[in-house]
Amino acid sequence: MSILVVGSIALDTVETPRGKVNDSPGGSALYFSAAASFFAPVNVVGVVGEDFDFSWIEFLKQRQVDLKGLKVEKGATFRWGGRYHSDMNQRDTLFTYLNVFEKFNPDIPENYRNCEYIFLANIDPELQLNVLNSVENPTLTVLDTMNFWISGKREALDEVISRVDVLILNDEEIRELTGIRHVHVAARELLKRGPKVLVVKKGEHGAVMVSQDDYFFAPAYPVEEVVDPTGAGDSFAGGFVGYLARQKQLNSTAFRKAVIYGTTIASFNVESFSFERLKNLQPQEIDQRVERLREMTRF
Amino acid sequence: MSILVVGSIALDTVETPRGKVNDSPGGSALYFSAAASFFAPVNVVGVVGEDFDFSWIEFLKQRQVDLKGLKVEKGATFRWGGRYHSDMNQRDTLFTYLNVFEKFNPDIPENYRNCEYIFLANIDPELQLNVLNSVENPTLTVLDTMNFWISGKREALDEVISRVDVLILNDEEIRELTGIRHVHVAARELLKRGPKVLVVKKGEHGAVMVSQDDYFFAPAYPVEEVVDPTGAGDSFAGGFVGYLARQKQLNSTAFRKAVIYGTTIASFNVESFSFERLKNLQPQEIDQRVERLREMTRF
Repeated sequence: MSILVVGSIALDTVETPRGKVNDSPGGSALYFSAAASFFAPVNVVGVVGEDFDFSWIEFLKQRQVDLKGLKVEKGATFRWGGRYHSDMNQRDTLFTYLNVFEKFNPDIPENYRNCEYIFLANIDPELQLNVLNSVENPTLTVLDTMNFWISGKREALDEVISRVDVLILNDEEIRELTGIRHVHVAARELLKRGPKVLVVKKGEHGAVMVSQDDYFFAPAYPVEEVVDPTGAGDSFAGGFVGYLARQKQLNSTAFRKAVIYGTTIASFNVESFSFERLKNLQPQEIDQRVERLREMTRF
Repeated sequence: MSILVVGSIALDTVETPRGKVNDSPGGSALYFSAAASFFAPVNVVGVVGEDFDFSWIEFLKQRQVDLKGLKVEKGATFRWGGRYHSDMNQRDTLFTYLNVFEKFNPDIPENYRNCEYIFLANIDPELQLNVLNSVENPTLTVLDTMNFWISGKREALDEVISRVDVLILNDEEIRELTGIRHVHVAARELLKRGPKVLVVKKGEHGAVMVSQDDYFFAPAYPVEEVVDPTGAGDSFAGGFVGYLARQKQLNSTAFRKAVIYGTTIASFNVESFSFERLKNLQPQEIDQRVERLREMTRF
């Protein structure tokens, strides 16, 4: 089954206690694709500027990622600059230059409209609605968002939330969306608003998945050295959606394993800047870490 | 195998969003005993004032808890007053009257000195050292402490830490003790200082147990309605030590299950003020919740 992702493509300038990179390729759509490509074909819709060098993401093409939905517009690629604090759980945005991303209006190519799995990466909820209106009867729609849209475009966001199957959030976002502190109580509240499944990412505390008839508590993988947390959420989503897109049945076992595969791919992603670790990651390494996660929770 | 616990006995005045109680029995030694008594005989050393009514804790006697080590001193029982914030994860201490607890110097009765399992509840580390010097070749020693002693009596605390087998902390305390943010990295640092096993409690994020050759990620039980978090840490310790005291072999399976039993008993404890829930708790309810925790982490 094939996946459609709509999101940002960026050149990131990132500083962490482990080093610094300038204008390195990133953005939600690419982190998602790099992760999902281990499991299923991915089609990407996004925009880059004339300064974007496609050789940077040549590895994606070799892994069943279709980049024909990437438009090249006159101007510069979206740029983001950030600095992580010493504990890596907080960061300051140093600059955001939207550039060609400012007028991004996703135009879904005809041959992408029947993709079965749709991932709406973190962009303006009005654009996410346009995407939902363009696709034909997908099997599963998955939404990511951020506090910026929760406070800034609440009405459009509420409509997207009411129309998707799965909502992936972090613990701060679910609190902001519901005003409820305890994640499992907040999750039940959100299930009333449309989604059938909620995944709450909690960083080093793991993740919790809640649906009408399931509750899953997933461990975090204890990464030895976090080099750069950028893209952790999108690579989690990529592993999650990718794993599901390869399953015959979307039952609770599949969703639970999808969370574990998301956790695992994200744990590799944060071990390097940009896509360095995901580029050379081998499928058997993924499986080994999944087994370690199983071993960590057995009793 | 029998357990010795040395800690506080208090009359607590507690206000939470769910209600308020005045002068209700509590304290680390009693919360621990109420929890551990489901598994093994417990011997308590502590002090109360003349105003303490032993009928309040009659239920402990009926559950193999020996209270002959509780001294009654002239004066009033230790009193603590606190108010929890709306999210229950923070609290303000409104008052602390040490009363007879101010001069507490645990005198371990002769017939308690050969207890195999020792729990040093959160008291002055100098007193904890006295206890360690009084007991005879225990099978397992387990330590709890708090930030007050980490900053105030560091030298004595470091000595206790170097002499115990298991250290139980919450995530703030382990950060304060090591200056390291990531729990699994901080835990490895603390293992160099003496203890063989570290248990880090993280509230609604569960618990992590780290030893030289094991790493266990335990879920939190999603309690429907937290009424009063007071005693959660001590009832966790009671379930943990109690479970171990009933095992023939202290291998990693036993330690993992001990964390799960600790988590489970603590989850019941917070469903009421004081000991109300632990008083009427049935062994089969404990086992049911342990099975639910297993189901929550299966994948």
